[in-house]
Order: sequence, then structure tokens, then C-alpha cells
Amino acid sequence: MIRQLTIIGVGLIGGSLARALKQTGFCAEVVGCSRDATHLQKAVDLGVIDRFSTEIAEAVKGAEIVLLAVPLGAMEACFAAMAGNLPSDVVITDAGSSKASVVSAAKSAFGDLPTGLVPGHPIAGTEQSGVEASFAELYQGRRVILTPLPTSSVEAVAKVRAMWQQAGAIVDEMGVEHHDEVLAATSHLPHMLAYGLVDTLVSMDESEEIFRFAAGGFRDFTRIASSDPVVWRDICVANRKALLEVLERYLSDLEKITDLVRKGDGESLGDVFQRAKAARDRFVDQLEK
Amino acid sequence: MIRQLTIIGVGLIGGSLARALKQTGFCAEVVGCSRDATHLQKAVDLGVIDRFSTEIAEAVKGAEIVLLAVPLGAMEACFAAMAGNLPSDVVITDAGSSKASVVSAAKSAFGDLPTGLVPGHPIAGTEQSGVEASFAELYQGRRVILTPLPTSSVEAVAKVRAMWQQAGAIVDEMGVEHHDEVLAATSHLPHMLAYGLVDTLVSMDESEEIFRFAAGGFRDFTRIASSDPVVWRDICVANRKALLEVLERYLSDLEKITDLVRKGDGESLGDVFQRAKAARDRFVDQLEK
Repeated sequence: MIRQLTIIGVGLIGGSLARALKQTGFCAEVVGCSRDATHLQKAVDLGVIDRFSTEIAEAVKGAEIVLLAVPLGAMEACFAAMAGNLPSDVVITDAGSSKASVVSAAKSAFGDLPTGLVPGHPIAGTEQSGVEASFAELYQGRRVILTPLPTSSVEAVAKVRAMWQQAGAIVDEMGVEHHDEVLAATSHLPHMLAYGLVDTLVSMDESEEIFRFAAGGFRDFTRIASSDPVVWRDICVANRKALLEVLERYLSDLEKITDLVRKGDGESLGDVFQRAKAARDRFVDQLEK
Repeated sequence: MIRQLTIIGVGLIGGSLARALKQTGFCAEVVGCSRDATHLQKAVDLGVIDRFSTEIAEAVKGAEIVLLAVPLGAMEACFAAMAGNLPSDVVITDAGSSKASVVSAAKSAFGDLPTGLVPGHPIAGTEQSGVEASFAELYQGRRVILTPLPTSSVEAVAKVRAMWQQAGAIVDEMGVEHHDEVLAATSHLPHMLAYGLVDTLVSMDESEEIFRFAAGGFRDFTRIASSDPVVWRDICVANRKALLEVLERYLSDLEKITDLVRKGDGESLGDVFQRAKAARDRFVDQLEK
């Protein structure tokens, strides 16, 4: 049980955590912060947060844990606004999809990294955004990756871990760079492919008709292309090194597939599809365990 | 109401149609045919078909409508096996995902195209296959595209249309070539991308870990990579001209996105994502109407 959790950015991710922790009684009070008072008042009305401030320096007063759940491009400004205003012993974590950029933003804002800083990333979400889309069960059984830094105190890591576990998540730890590589492959690359596909089809002459004859498979395949463009713009910039590597790898593999189609080499295509299906079926089995 | 429907290939697609039409009483008797008697007996036990033969020449005897629901690569052999054994006035249709290849297979097998031949394509399915996965509601509210030929009789077209409507589908008509272009974009291309993504990730060093940290978005995105590899191998070969065109277009667009990532051009990336999100949200709105 903690006294006060301050959440900067009360959207799907921050709002869902607030809902979960209020249900379990993990924290006595949740304070919300963003630039938009109307939006924050809605979060109060929905029972997601207890009170709010539009000023970060004000919102972090008295906080035991501060969670930043803002687009990656906004991290540095948020860190800078809290620097000098934080309670001693405060624990700071975030929900950003790339971690090296968050560490670098913290260095720029704080100079020396605070011992309370423990970057994190909940592997959960939907294509929806905003506090209206938040729900307490979002993190149930989902993984959260923490990337503790050499400067992170043992106590801070334990507190962030306990917080996510209270929300129902399974908590793992890995290094910052490794996190960024794994997520580039498993999350950032698929988003590029889905956004890219929809954009390619939209630009075609028959685009209206194409969408009319698209079915359930297409809807699922492109679901992630309905994700928040600002969040994803920032992820691309923040994790561009690792993302570029998997994009180039994928492009080269897709060129090989294209070449097999060009040659009409059904046998080799069948081998690729068989291998992919087997891997994907294994993955789903694991996910459902 | 018709006397007898013969379905060649009693899997998800053929089995689901049989179930739907038995429920509505559209046909008195459904006869199944494939090479595997054990499989066909299971279809009888499940109540999907009434009786079967493993011989096409035998199975089409007395049929009023014959549906081919086999992989595209098997179409020509099936047509050849029924040529000379068909009742006069029989209507022949299929469920193949590309249509030019079906017409060409029919020409090879029959010489002159039968006036009863009306190629078709139900835009429905799941990543499952086999008669066990079939269900009567598969076509409810889904689209079926018919591509009537200059040789197709008006009566045959009307009969195939009525059959799919009885199964709950919305029936559209378009030209063979146009169908193949639209489906290459909306269905065949996404399957290539999904199979390709899974295959790229499997070949990476951290593949076990990558799949461990993949979440719901990834599962949805790759669902179609669990589709039947033989069916998709055949589609790639059968529709390679149209597929190649959209693959090349997509590759070029994805190279542009990769270049924006390389340059860290967040603004242009954000524009692409915004445009794609808007189009995808519109598409889902339409689909749900």
C-alpha cells in the first residue's frame, strides 16, 4: 500500500493502471496530470483519478510513485518539469515502448539519474486511446518489462514490480538495449507493416472497392493501424536504430518472397508458409497457456 | 430448393456451406467428395453431408449444383474428372480465391466452357481448416463475389446467387480480372506480409524471446499466418500477376517508410500513420454497418 501515485498522462495506459490499483487498494490516492483540465475532470468523473493538476511540479508533490504514461517525445519535457520538485525517495517509472530514449531523456533533464528511476514497459494496450477506453483488467496476465538501470535502487525496483503485480501483470526484467531490440521486432515492426499496408491500399485507384471487399482477416491484420499516430511517430523516432534493423531485414525477406511469387515457385513459397504457420501456432499455444 | 448439391472438398468452406444450406432446406441432399473416405465419413457423422463418394465422376451424378472447394492447384484435375460425367443443366461453381486461374483450368479440362459454369468466391473464412472447423453461420452477412463469364447462362448465375443468399451472404458480381486485382490487394498481400513477418522473426537469434513478449496485437496481426499453407501456395501461383503488382507497390511504399525512419523524420511518419488510421477507422465503421 502506498500513499500517493501520480500519473502523468491519463489515457488508456495510465488510466487502466489507476483503475486497477484503486480496485486493489494499492494506493490511497491517485493524482492525475496532463495539459488538459477538461480531460482530467472527466477522469475524476469516471472515478479513474482522485484529483488532478495541470502542473507537473504541483502534481508530483507528495507522490510516492510517479508514472509517466505520455508519448515518448514528451518524456524529456515531463522529466524536466519535475526535476527539483520531486519528494526525496520518490520512485519514477514510465510506460514508454522504447527504453533507451527514456533513459537519455532522463539524463538530459536530471543530469545524474535519480536512484528512484526504474524504466518500464507494459506489453498491453488496445488500438483505442484516451481515458474513456481505460479498464481495470487491461494488465491481467499481461507482461510488463522493467529495465532497471545501474543507478536504480533495489527498493525502487521492488516497488515498481509490486505495483504492476498488483495490477495483475507478470513482471520481467531485461537490459535497456535488449528490450528495444525485442520490441522493435515484436511490436514496432508489425505496426509499420499495418500502417504501411493501409496507406498503400488507400493510394490505389480502386481503394473504395478494396475496403468494401475486405473481410475479418483484413480487419484483424490492420487493427494496429488504428493506434494513436502521435504515439507511434514518437516510437519510430525514439527506437529508430533497432527498428531500422528489423525493417531492413523484413524488406529483404519480403523481396525474397516477392521473387518466389515472380518465379511462380509454389514449392518454396509453401515451405515458407508451412514454417511460419508452425511457428505462429506454437506461439498462440504458449500465449494461451 | 434443389435436389442435390455435390461439394468437392468438404473442409471449412465447403462444410460451412453444406451446414447452412441443410439448415435452410435449400437442398434435399448434400453429397461430399474428396480423396479421403475417413474424412468424408467424419463429415457424415457430423451431419455436414448426407453421403459421399471418393470418385468425382460418381459424386456428381444427379447433382443440380456442383461446388468445388479445393485448393486452386487441384481445380483442373477436378474439372477433368467431372468432364463427360456431368448431368445436363448442371450448375458448376467454385470457392477459389483467384478466378482467372479457375477459368483457365476449366478451359483446359472442358475445352468449351460449360454454360453452367459460374466462378465464385466467398469472402469468408477463418485461419482454421477442415470440416471440424466448419459452421453454418460462416457466411452470414459476408460477401460472395461471382464472376459470371460470357458463356454463363442467366439461369446458372441466378441459381448460384440464390444458393449463397440462402447461406446468408451478400452477393456481388464483377469481372474475373478485376476480382483478382481487388483480392490481391485486400487478401493475398496481407497474407504474404503476415507469413513473411512470422518467418522473419523465427529466423532471428532471439526468436524464442520475441514470441514470449509478443502480445495481443501481434496475435491478431499474424492470425492469417496460421492459414493453410497449401491453399496459399496455390493462390500465390494462381494469382501471381496481380499479387506481384501489389507486392512491388507495397515494397516500394515500405522502403519509403523505412527511409523516413532512417532519417528520423517523425513529422512525415506521423502523417502516414494519421492517414492510415483515418482510412482504417472508416473501413471498420463501414464493416460494422
